[in-house]
Amino acid sequence: MVSDADYQAAVEALGRARSVALTTHVKPDADALGSAAALRRWLQGAGKTVDVIVPTPAPGKYAFLESGGPVKVAGRDVDLSAAEPPDLVVIVDTATWQQLDGMQPLVAESGAPVLVIDHHRTVDPLADMVLVDTDAAATVVIVHRLLVEAGVPIDRATAGYLFAGLVGDTDWFRLPNVSPETFRLAASLVEAGANPTEIHAHLHLGDSVAKLHLWGRALETLHPALGDRATVMHLTRAMFRETGADVGDTENLINQCMRVRGTRVGLMLVETEGDEVRVSLRCTPGLNVLEVAEQFGGGGHIRAAGARLTGPLDQVEARVLAAVDEALADAEKSEKP
Amino acid sequence: MVSDADYQAAVEALGRARSVALTTHVKPDADALGSAAALRRWLQGAGKTVDVIVPTPAPGKYAFLESGGPVKVAGRDVDLSAAEPPDLVVIVDTATWQQLDGMQPLVAESGAPVLVIDHHRTVDPLADMVLVDTDAAATVVIVHRLLVEAGVPIDRATAGYLFAGLVGDTDWFRLPNVSPETFRLAASLVEAGANPTEIHAHLHLGDSVAKLHLWGRALETLHPALGDRATVMHLTRAMFRETGADVGDTENLINQCMRVRGTRVGLMLVETEGDEVRVSLRCTPGLNVLEVAEQFGGGGHIRAAGARLTGPLDQVEARVLAAVDEALADAEKSEKP
Repeated sequence: MVSDADYQAAVEALGRARSVALTTHVKPDADALGSAAALRRWLQGAGKTVDVIVPTPAPGKYAFLESGGPVKVAGRDVDLSAAEPPDLVVIVDTATWQQLDGMQPLVAESGAPVLVIDHHRTVDPLADMVLVDTDAAATVVIVHRLLVEAGVPIDRATAGYLFAGLVGDTDWFRLPNVSPETFRLAASLVEAGANPTEIHAHLHLGDSVAKLHLWGRALETLHPALGDRATVMHLTRAMFRETGADVGDTENLINQCMRVRGTRVGLMLVETEGDEVRVSLRCTPGLNVLEVAEQFGGGGHIRAAGARLTGPLDQVEARVLAAVDEALADAEKSEKP
Repeated sequence: MVSDADYQAAVEALGRARSVALTTHVKPDADALGSAAALRRWLQGAGKTVDVIVPTPAPGKYAFLESGGPVKVAGRDVDLSAAEPPDLVVIVDTATWQQLDGMQPLVAESGAPVLVIDHHRTVDPLADMVLVDTDAAATVVIVHRLLVEAGVPIDRATAGYLFAGLVGDTDWFRLPNVSPETFRLAASLVEAGANPTEIHAHLHLGDSVAKLHLWGRALETLHPALGDRATVMHLTRAMFRETGADVGDTENLINQCMRVRGTRVGLMLVETEGDEVRVSLRCTPGLNVLEVAEQFGGGGHIRAAGARLTGPLDQVEARVLAAVDEALADAEKSEKP
C-alpha cells in the first residue's frame, strides 16, 4: 500500500531537483516511455533540465511518446560515465539491475539520489526512495497520481502519454489487471484530450508488408498438440529470409496460438543463429509456464516465459512439449479434487 | 437528444406488457444479443413472459449471451405467422426493414405495439415508440440507462451482457465512438461484476485451426497498390478447400490490411460461387468507400462497404482499384487547399 505521504515525499524530491535524469528498462515499452514522457513534460514545464536515457533503443512505433524531446540511448547518444551527474535519477517501470542493463554508471556510480516509480513485484535495493504500487495496472497509473498530488493539470499531451502506457500494459483493457479504476482513469484521460483511435494507430497500425507475410507463414505452421490443449507455431530461418521480416516482427505473434479454441498453452519456436531455437510460452490462468522455461535455463513470468534450446525445430518442440505435458498433468491433478 | 421523458415512456410500456418479444437485426452481433439478454433478464425477473427471436442465427461465440434462455431463429424455431402475438414487440439495435429480414409477421402483422431501442441513424417508420440515441456508442448504452431509469439493479450477469455489447460496437474501446462516458460505463459494469478477460475469451479466443490457416494464406497474398495507399488481400476457392475454413471465417480479416503503415484503403477479394468475387472495402477517415462500392451495385457504410463483381480475381482487383484511385484523388484534392 502506498500512502499519501509517499507521494508527497516523491513530489518534494522532484520539486527540489533542478536537473533530472529519467530512465527505464531494456526494450522500453509504452508504459515505460509514456511514464517518462509525462514526467518530462511536467518537470520541463517547471523549468528543470530533463534527460530521458534508455538502456536499449525503443521501437519506432513509440516515436509519438518522444514529442517532449529525444529519448537518448545509453552508450550510443550519451557516455554515462563521463556525463555530469543530475540532481536526481528517476527510474520508471522497473526496479531491477537486470532490466537496467548498462545504466549502472548513472544509477549506482554517479552519486545522484535515485527515485524508483514502478508497479512490478521485484525490487532490488538500488534506490534511495521507492514509489512502488504492485496493485497499479501500469506505472502510468502511479505517475498520474503523482501529477495529481503535485497539483499539475493533465493537459492533452500528458493525457495521451498516460493513456498509451495504460493500454500498453493492459493489452488494451483485456488483461486481468483491468479494474474499475483502470476505466475511470481512461475516462478522465480521454476527457483531458487523449485520443484512443490515434493512439491505436500509432501502436498497432504501422506494420510492414514483410511482417504480415511472416505472420501469414507462421499461421500456416500452427498445429495442435497434447490432445488440443497446446498450440504450436514454427518460424524458420527461411521464412525470415524469404519475407524480409526480422526477429522484432515476432512481437505478440505467439498470442495467435492462444486464439485457438481450448488451447491452454501456446508455444512459438523461432530459429535464430547456429542451431539455436528460441521458445516462447504462454498459458491460460491456473498453469505455470515459467517452471517449464526454467527447466531449460529460461525465465519470465508465470503465464509468459521463454528459453533458448539447441537442436532441430522438431526435436526442440518434442522436448518442450514433454515438459508442458507434465505441467498440464500437475495442473489438472489439482483442478480435479 | 433523448429526454428523461422518453426513457420513462419506454419503462412504462415495458412495465405494462405481460408478454414481450425481443428481436434484432440479421447476423446478430454482441451489441444486439447483449442488449436483448439484458432486457430479457430484467423482464423475466419482473415475472413477464419473454421470447428472444432473431431473423438469422447468431455465431456460436455469442452463446454466453444466451444464459437467460434460448435465442430462437425465426422460421426455424418459431413460426411467426402462427404464433400468439405478444403484448409488446421490442426491436434492439436496428430500425430498418432491410435489417429485420423475415421478422415482418411479428413486427408489422401481429398487431402488437412496437418499441425500437437503437443508436443507428436510419429509422424506418416501423415503430409505435422509438428510443433512438445516435450519440450512444452502442445500443447497450441506451439499455443501461433504461435499466437505471427503471430502478433495476445491474447484477453480475447483466453487467457482462452490457459490457459485451459495449466492446463489440467499439472494437474494444478503439473506434472513434469511444468517449469518456464509454469508459465510465465500462468502469461501473466491471464494478458490478463484468469480467473483461472472460468476455474477451468468449468473443476472441474460440477460433479453429482451419480459420487461422486461412488467415495465414490470406496474409501471404497481401500486397500494396496505388503507391502504397491501398493494401489488397485475396482469398481463392482453393484456400477454403485446402484449409477447411468457411466464408464465416473471413469476419474482420480485412482489418489486417489496415495494419500496413500508410494504408488508406483496404480491399479483400473473396472468390465465392461461379465466377463471383465478393469485395470488402475499408478506409481511414476522410475517405468514402461506400461511393466506390455503389459504383459496382454494392452498399454499406462510408468507411466499411462491399460489393459483388464477376470475373477473375485479378481483373476484379484492377476494376475496383481504378475506382479507389479516383476516390483517393478526390479526397486528396480536398485535403490540399
